[in-house]
Amino acid sequence: MKKILILNGPNLNRLGKREPHIYGSETLDDVKNSLELLANQIGCKIDFKQSNHEGDIVDSIHNAEDEEYDGLIINPGAFTHYSYAIRDAIASVSYPTVEVHISNVHARELFRHHSVVSPVTVGQIVGLGTKGYKLALLSLVKEDI
Amino acid sequence: MKKILILNGPNLNRLGKREPHIYGSETLDDVKNSLELLANQIGCKIDFKQSNHEGDIVDSIHNAEDEEYDGLIINPGAFTHYSYAIRDAIASVSYPTVEVHISNVHARELFRHHSVVSPVTVGQIVGLGTKGYKLALLSLVKEDI
Amino acid sequence: MKKILILNGPNLNRLGKREPHIYGSETLDDVKNSLELLANQIGCKIDFKQSNHEGDIVDSIHNAEDEEYDGLIINPGAFTHYSYAIRDAIASVSYPTVEVHISNVHARELFRHHSVVSPVTVGQIVGLGTKGYKLALLSLVKEDI
Amino acid sequence: MKKILILNGPNLNRLGKREPHIYGSETLDDVKNSLELLANQIGCKIDFKQSNHEGDIVDSIHNAEDEEYDGLIINPGAFTHYSYAIRDAIASVSYPTVEVHISNVHARELFRHHSVVSPVTVGQIVGLGTKGYKLALLSLVKEDI
Amino acid sequence: MKKILILNGPNLNRLGKREPHIYGSETLDDVKNSLELLANQIGCKIDFKQSNHEGDIVDSIHNAEDEEYDGLIINPGAFTHYSYAIRDAIASVSYPTVEVHISNVHARELFRHHSVVSPVTVGQIVGLGTKGYKLALLSLVKEDI
Amino acid sequence: MKKILILNGPNLNRLGKREPHIYGSETLDDVKNSLELLANQIGCKIDFKQSNHEGDIVDSIHNAEDEEYDGLIINPGAFTHYSYAIRDAIASVSYPTVEVHISNVHARELFRHHSVVSPVTVGQIVGLGTKGYKLALLSLVKEDI
Amino acid sequence: MKKILILNGPNLNRLGKREPHIYGSETLDDVKNSLELLANQIGCKIDFKQSNHEGDIVDSIHNAEDEEYDGLIINPGAFTHYSYAIRDAIASVSYPTVEVHISNVHARELFRHHSVVSPVTVGQIVGLGTKGYKLALLSLVKEDI
Amino acid sequence: MKKILILNGPNLNRLGKREPHIYGSETLDDVKNSLELLANQIGCKIDFKQSNHEGDIVDSIHNAEDEEYDGLIINPGAFTHYSYAIRDAIASVSYPTVEVHISNVHARELFRHHSVVSPVTVGQIVGLGTKGYKLALLSLVKEDI
Amino acid sequence: MKKILILNGPNLNRLGKREPHIYGSETLDDVKNSLELLANQIGCKIDFKQSNHEGDIVDSIHNAEDEEYDGLIINPGAFTHYSYAIRDAIASVSYPTVEVHISNVHARELFRHHSVVSPVTVGQIVGLGTKGYKLALLSLVKEDI
Amino acid sequence: MKKILILNGPNLNRLGKREPHIYGSETLDDVKNSLELLANQIGCKIDFKQSNHEGDIVDSIHNAEDEEYDGLIINPGAFTHYSYAIRDAIASVSYPTVEVHISNVHARELFRHHSVVSPVTVGQIVGLGTKGYKLALLSLVKEDI
Amino acid sequence: MKKILILNGPNLNRLGKREPHIYGSETLDDVKNSLELLANQIGCKIDFKQSNHEGDIVDSIHNAEDEEYDGLIINPGAFTHYSYAIRDAIASVSYPTVEVHISNVHARELFRHHSVVSPVTVGQIVGLGTKGYKLALLSLVKEDI
Amino acid sequence: MKKILILNGPNLNRLGKREPHIYGSETLDDVKNSLELLANQIGCKIDFKQSNHEGDIVDSIHNAEDEEYDGLIINPGAFTHYSYAIRDAIASVSYPTVEVHISNVHARELFRHHSVVSPVTVGQIVGLGTKGYKLALLSLVKEDI
Repeated sequence: MKKILILNGPNLNRLGKREPHIYGSETLDDVKNSLELLANQIGCKIDFKQSNHEGDIVDSIHNAEDEEYDGLIINPGAFTHYSYAIRDAIASVSYPTVEVHISNVHARELFRHHSVVSPVTVGQIVGLGTKGYKLALLSLVKEDI
Repeated sequence: MKKILILNGPNLNRLGKREPHIYGSETLDDVKNSLELLANQIGCKIDFKQSNHEGDIVDSIHNAEDEEYDGLIINPGAFTHYSYAIRDAIASVSYPTVEVHISNVHARELFRHHSVVSPVTVGQIVGLGTKGYKLALLSLVKEDI
Repeated sequence: MKKILILNGPNLNRLGKREPHIYGSETLDDVKNSLELLANQIGCKIDFKQSNHEGDIVDSIHNAEDEEYDGLIINPGAFTHYSYAIRDAIASVSYPTVEVHISNVHARELFRHHSVVSPVTVGQIVGLGTKGYKLALLSLVKEDI
Repeated sequence: MKKILILNGPNLNRLGKREPHIYGSETLDDVKNSLELLANQIGCKIDFKQSNHEGDIVDSIHNAEDEEYDGLIINPGAFTHYSYAIRDAIASVSYPTVEVHISNVHARELFRHHSVVSPVTVGQIVGLGTKGYKLALLSLVKEDI
Repeated sequence: MKKILILNGPNLNRLGKREPHIYGSETLDDVKNSLELLANQIGCKIDFKQSNHEGDIVDSIHNAEDEEYDGLIINPGAFTHYSYAIRDAIASVSYPTVEVHISNVHARELFRHHSVVSPVTVGQIVGLGTKGYKLALLSLVKEDI
Repeated sequence: MKKILILNGPNLNRLGKREPHIYGSETLDDVKNSLELLANQIGCKIDFKQSNHEGDIVDSIHNAEDEEYDGLIINPGAFTHYSYAIRDAIASVSYPTVEVHISNVHARELFRHHSVVSPVTVGQIVGLGTKGYKLALLSLVKEDI
Repeated sequence: MKKILILNGPNLNRLGKREPHIYGSETLDDVKNSLELLANQIGCKIDFKQSNHEGDIVDSIHNAEDEEYDGLIINPGAFTHYSYAIRDAIASVSYPTVEVHISNVHARELFRHHSVVSPVTVGQIVGLGTKGYKLALLSLVKEDI
Repeated sequence: MKKILILNGPNLNRLGKREPHIYGSETLDDVKNSLELLANQIGCKIDFKQSNHEGDIVDSIHNAEDEEYDGLIINPGAFTHYSYAIRDAIASVSYPTVEVHISNVHARELFRHHSVVSPVTVGQIVGLGTKGYKLALLSLVKEDI
Repeated sequence: MKKILILNGPNLNRLGKREPHIYGSETLDDVKNSLELLANQIGCKIDFKQSNHEGDIVDSIHNAEDEEYDGLIINPGAFTHYSYAIRDAIASVSYPTVEVHISNVHARELFRHHSVVSPVTVGQIVGLGTKGYKLALLSLVKEDI
Repeated sequence: MKKILILNGPNLNRLGKREPHIYGSETLDDVKNSLELLANQIGCKIDFKQSNHEGDIVDSIHNAEDEEYDGLIINPGAFTHYSYAIRDAIASVSYPTVEVHISNVHARELFRHHSVVSPVTVGQIVGLGTKGYKLALLSLVKEDI
Repeated sequence: MKKILILNGPNLNRLGKREPHIYGSETLDDVKNSLELLANQIGCKIDFKQSNHEGDIVDSIHNAEDEEYDGLIINPGAFTHYSYAIRDAIASVSYPTVEVHISNVHARELFRHHSVVSPVTVGQIVGLGTKGYKLALLSLVKEDI
Repeated sequence: MKKILILNGPNLNRLGKREPHIYGSETLDDVKNSLELLANQIGCKIDFKQSNHEGDIVDSIHNAEDEEYDGLIINPGAFTHYSYAIRDAIASVSYPTVEVHISNVHARELFRHHSVVSPVTVGQIVGLGTKGYKLALLSLVKEDI
C-alpha cells in the first residue's frame, strides 16, 4: 500500500478563516478528512501536516525519504515564492512531488506568479480549490484514473 | 448530461511522434480514446479537437458558448505563451476553462514558464502527462471526486 | 468617392456579448450600420470586416492595396500586442491606416499598454467607445471637419 | 451649452515654428481659431490656454471643476511623460478628459511611447495632426457624430 | 520655541473633495487647524503651505533655511515620485525633514511605491491618514513622546 | 482597554550592540521599557516579543487574532524584504498592523528599499529611531493625538 | 535526389513591391525561378511556398516530415519574432532547417533582433539578400561546395 | 558681438552654501562675475540667470530665440534627469546649446548618470567645476581657442 | 587557542546522499571528522553544526559572539540566495566570516549565482569541494600558510 | 581579381582541438586549405589570419582598407559579444563585411546570442559549420551563384 | 612646466577618413599639431599617442605615473564602453584624467551612452569636436582660464 | 612534479602601489616570492606571469596546454567582468583552473559582482587577500590538505 505525505505551508492553518473570497470556507481539517476518505477508497495511506516553519517542512521532506514514502503533495503557501531551501529538499529526495495551490495564483499579485519549487516537482495543480489535493492524490496513486 | 470541449493547440497532432523523451509515446488519438472511456464512466459528453490555426481555436471557443458547452479543457501548446487572442476568447465566454500541459513547462525553456492564458482560466494542471486531461475532466464534471 | 476598409480583429465578433462593462452593449453589426450611415453622409464607401484569423487580416490589407482603397481603419483586438505580421502588412502598403481601440487600453492590464502596430499607423483613437470608428472615418475622409 | 477647456503644455506656444517636419506649419493661434469655428458650429463654448508651467496647468484643471466645465481636452506636451501632478489633477476632478497628441508619439523616441496621464483620461487621439483637437471636441460634445 | 514648516504638494488643495475613498473627507484647512491646536499644546510654531508649483516648494525649502526653521514636514504629493529638484533642495538645507503620505502608497499603483525624496529625509510616515502630520510634528518637536 | 502586540524580527535582539552608527545604542529592553511607560500613560496593554524564527512570528500573528488583540506593531527586520509568509499572516487577520523601521531604510542598500509587507499593513513609520514604536502605538490607540 | 521545402512567411508575397529600399526589387516569383535554376544545376528538387497564415506554415512543416523531405529553408518573415508554434513545429521534425532573412535584421528595429526560431534550426543566413536562399540550398544539398 | 544666454536650474542659487564637499565654496554670483570678466576678454555679451521654476527656464529658452541669442549654456541642475519640457524647448530653437555640470555626475548617485537633455545639446562639459562654464563659453564664442 | 564555528545550512545533512554528481559522496560527518583532524594539526578548536532552520543559524551566529569565537565558516546552502536575516546576523557580529560552497554555484542555475551574504563576509571559497572548508579554516587560523 | 581578407578571432587557433562536440574536428589549417581551393575555383585571392589580440584584428581591418581589399569575412570568436572596437573598425572601412560563426550561437549560452558586430556587417552566416566560410566567400565574390 | 599625456583609443587613427559626417574631416595629426601649438602658448609639454591595443593604453597610463606626468586627456574610443581594465588603470594612478569624446555620444547608439571610465575621471568633455581636446588641456593646465 | 601556471591580469603589476586600502601593500613580486616558497614546500613548480594584454593571457593559457601544465591559477583583474575571450580559452583547455580575487569583489561596485570566467573554472577564492593564491595552489596540488 502506497504512503503519501501531504505538507501544507504557512498560513494554511487559517484556511476557512483567512480571506474566504479567495480560499473558500472549508477548513484544513475538512480537507484532511475528505482526503482520508479518498485514500481509503483508492487504497493508500496518507500523512497530513501543516507548519508555519520552513525548517520543519524541510525536515519532513527528508524524513519521508528515510521512511520510504511513495510521494509528496505539497502546498508550500507563501514559501512557494522564495524558499530555495524547500526546493533543494525536494530535489534531494527520490520520490515524486506534486505541487498544489488552492487559488489561481496566476490571477493574483505578480509575486505569486513565480514558483521556485515548480522546476523540481513532477507537476502542479493550481486554482481548482481543495479538489486539487484529491486530483494530486489520484495522479500519484492510480496508474490509470 | 454535461458537455465538455477539449481543444489542443499547435503541434499536438504530432504527439507520440514528436520529442518522445518530453511528451511520451502516446498519440493524440490514444488520449482521445481514453478520455471518451472516462467520459462514459462519469456520464458526460466530450468533443475533442486539435488545430494548428489560432483562429480556429478562437472560433471553437466562441461556438462552444453558443452551443452551451459546460466547460473547456485547453492545451494551447505553443500558443500558451503569446496568444492574447485565445486569452480574450476565453475571457469572453461564460463557461469555466481548465488549462492542461503534458510536460512540466516550468522545468523547460524560460519562454515556457509564462502563460498568457492562465489568468483567465479557472486553474491549470501541468506536468502530469496525458493524465492531466483526465484530472481536468474530473474537476469540471464531478462535484465530489 | 473614397473607399475605406474597416478591419476588426479577434473576439470583436462577440462585441455586445463579451464583457459589456468594458466594451458596452452595442454589437459589431450596430457599429457597421452606424458607420454606413456616416459614410453616406460624408460621401464615401466603406467595407467592414471581422476575422479571428491573423492571416485573413494580412490578406485583406494586401488586397486593399491592389483594389486601391484610400485608407484603413483597424481595430486589431488582441493582435495589437504581438502581431508583427499585421504590422509589416500595414508598413507594406501605401494607403494611410488609423488604429482604433474601443476601451482605454492604457487603463487595463499591462500587456494592453503596448501596441506593435502603432509605429506604422498614421495615428490612434483609443478609449472613445465605438465613436472612435466614426472619428477615424472623419479623419481619413474629410479634409476639414 | 457645454463648456470645454483646452489645455496645451510646454513648447506648444512654438507650434508652427518648432520642428515643422514633425508638427506642421500651423500655429497655436490657427488651431485656436479653427476650434472656435467648430465650437460655434456644434454649439459649445471653449476656453483655450497654453502654459510652460506645470503648476499653472494643475491650477487650471482644478479651477475648471469649480467653474463647472463639461470636459477637458489636454495636449500635455512633454509633461505627458512624467507629470504625475497633472495625472493626479485629472484624477481629482469629475469631468471627462481626452488626451491629444499632434504627432504619432509611438513612431518617435522611446520616452514618448509612455504617457503617465493616459490611465486617468477617457481616451486618447494621437498622430492625427491638429485635426485631433477637433475630433476630441466632437467626441466630448456630440452624443452622436 | 521651535518653528516647523509644513509643505503640501500638488492636488492636496483638493483634499476632502478628491477621491475621498482614498484620502478621506477632511479638507486641508481641517488638517491645518488641528495641527495648530497640537502645536499650541506642545509649544511650537508652525507655518502651513500648499502649492501646485514645484518651483514654489523649492523656494520655500530654501527660505526656511534662511529664516532658521527647525524642521520640515513635507507631503510632496505626486512630486514624491519624480521631483529630484525637491530632493536636492532638501539635501541642500541643514534642518531635518520628515516625509508624510496620507494614504498607504505601497498598496496603490506601482509608480507610487518609489520616492525620490526619501533618501534625503530623516524618515517617513505613510498611510496613517492625516494623523501622520501630527506624529511627524511630535517626532520633530518632542525629545521624548 | 486595548491590547497591542509588538513583534520584532531577526537580529533586533542585538539592538544597541549591533552597528550602533545605524541603529543607535538603545537596547531592545530599553525600547520595551519606554513603550510600557507610554502604554500606561495612554491606557493600553502591550505584549512585546522578539524572534529570529520566521515561523514563530507567523504563529504570534495568528495567536493574536485568536486572543483578540486590537492591533500589531511589527518591525520585521530583514524579513521585511522577503517573508511573504509574514505578509500572508498579516493579510489573514482582522486587526490593523503598523510597520516600523528604526533606520531610514531608503537611504541604505538597495535591497532594503522594498518591503513585501507594506501593502498589507495600514501604514509605515520609518527612520525615526525607536521613537517610531511610540508613534505607532499612539496611532493605533488614540483616536485623536 | 534530395527534396527541399522552401517556406516563406507573411508579407513575403509583396516582395519587390514592399519597401524596396529594404528588400530590393526582385519579386518572390523571381526568387522561385532562380532557385529552380540552381536546383536543376545541383540536382535536387524544391517545393516553394508562401503563406500569411501561421497555421498553414505549421501544417507544411509537418507534412514535409510525412513526405520525407530532406531539408527546410524557411524565411518566417514577421513570425520569426513570436511564433513559438513554428518553433515547436521545426523542433518536432527530423530533417534539418536553415533560417533565411533577406535584410540584415540586426541593423533594423530592436524587435527584429530576436528570433524565437533560431535555437531549433541548424543555422541562419541573414542580410545577404535573396542570394541567402541559394546559399542555404547549397548548404543543405552539397556535401562539399 | 555674440550674445550667449547662461541658465542655471534648481538649487544652484544655493551654490557655495549647499554641500560644499561636492560643489565647492564659490557662489553663483562669483561664477557670474568671473564669466563676465571672460566675456569681456573674448568680446561677447552674456546674460546670466537662475530659476527653481521649470516653466521659467522653458520661457527663457524660447525668448532667447526671439531675441536672437547665439548660444545657450545650461546647467539644468536636477531638471537634467527628468525635464523633457526643457529638452523639447532646446530642440525647438535654432541656436546651439552646451550642457554644463559642476560635479562629476557619473561618480554620484545612479539617477544622476542619465541626462534627458544631452541628446539635443551640441555637447556637455561635466565635472570640471565652475571652470566648465568658461570652457563652454570659449567653445561657443571662439572659432579657434 | 582559536575557536572557529562552522555552520551548515539546509539540506547539507543529506550530503553524500543528495545528488552525488553535484556534491560528491562524502557525508557531512566525513567532513566534520576531517576538519577536526586538521584543527588538531594546526592547533585550533572547531564547533561543527548543521540546521535546516534559518532562525537556529541566526541564533548560533549571535551566540558565537557572546562565546567569543574567533571566526565563522558558513555554508548557508539555499539560504545563500535569500536570507537577509543571516546576512544581518553576520553583519552584527565582530568576528570574521568566510563563506564556503562545495559546488561551483556559478556554473549552475541562475538563482545560485547571487549570494546575499557575500558582501558582509571577508571572502568566499567556491567549487573546491569539501576541501573548501579546510582552506577556509587555514585562512582564518594560520597567519602564514 | 577580387581580394578577400578572412579574419579569425580568439581561440580559433585551437579549432579541432577545442570542444570538438561543438566545433567539429577540422583544424583552422584545414579550413584555410579548403578556402584556398574554392578561391582558385571561383577566381579570387584570399588572405587568411587568426589572432587572439583584439588590437591586431582592428589593425588588420584598417590595413585591408589601405591595401584595397574587396571584402572581409570575419569570425570574431568571443570578441563578437563585446568588442565595440572591432565594430567601429568595420564601420570605418568602405568594403563589405560578412560575419561567420561555425556553431549555432543562438542555441548556446545567452551571452552568445548578441553580436555587437552584426549591425555594421552586410550579413551573417551562422551554425553551418566551416562551410559557412565558403558560403560567405561565394556571397562576396560571385555576382550570381 | 606641466607634462600632459594625451591618449587616443581604437580607430582614432582613422579620424578624417572614417565617417566624416560624424567625426569631421580633421585627421589625428591635425589634432596633434594644433594641440602642440596650444601647449606652446600656455607653456606646457604634451605627449600625444594613439593605439588600437587596450594593453598598450593601460601600459601608457602606468608609465605616465612613473614618469610623473601631471595629467591625462583620454579619448578611449570604443573602449569607453567596456574596458574596465582602462578604468582600473586610471583609478590606480594619482594624476587627474579628463575624458574627451569628439562626437555627442548621447545622441548616437544606445551602447555609446554609457562610459565605464567616467566615474574615475575628474570630468568629461563631449560633443565639442576636436576643440574638446584643447578645452581639456586648458582645464588641466591653467589655474584660471 | 606538478607544474602550475599563475596568471595575473591588468593593473596587478601596480599591486602595493594601487589603492592600498583595497589591495594591501604587498607587491606582486612579494606574492611571487612567497608562492615560490610554498611551491618548494609542497613540491611543485610554478610559473608566475602578469600582463595588461588580453591576447597575451589567452596565448599563455593555450601554451600551458601544449606544455602540459597541471593547472592554472588566474586573477583576471578587470578582464574578469568582460573577457569572453579568456573564458573561451579556459574552456578550450583540459587542465583545471582556479580563479582568485584579492579583494571581496562582492562588497565593491556592482560591475565587479559578475565574473564571465567563473562558470568555466573549477572554483573561486575571493576576498582572502594574497593568501588566496596560496590556498588555490594547495587546492590544485595537494590531494589532502
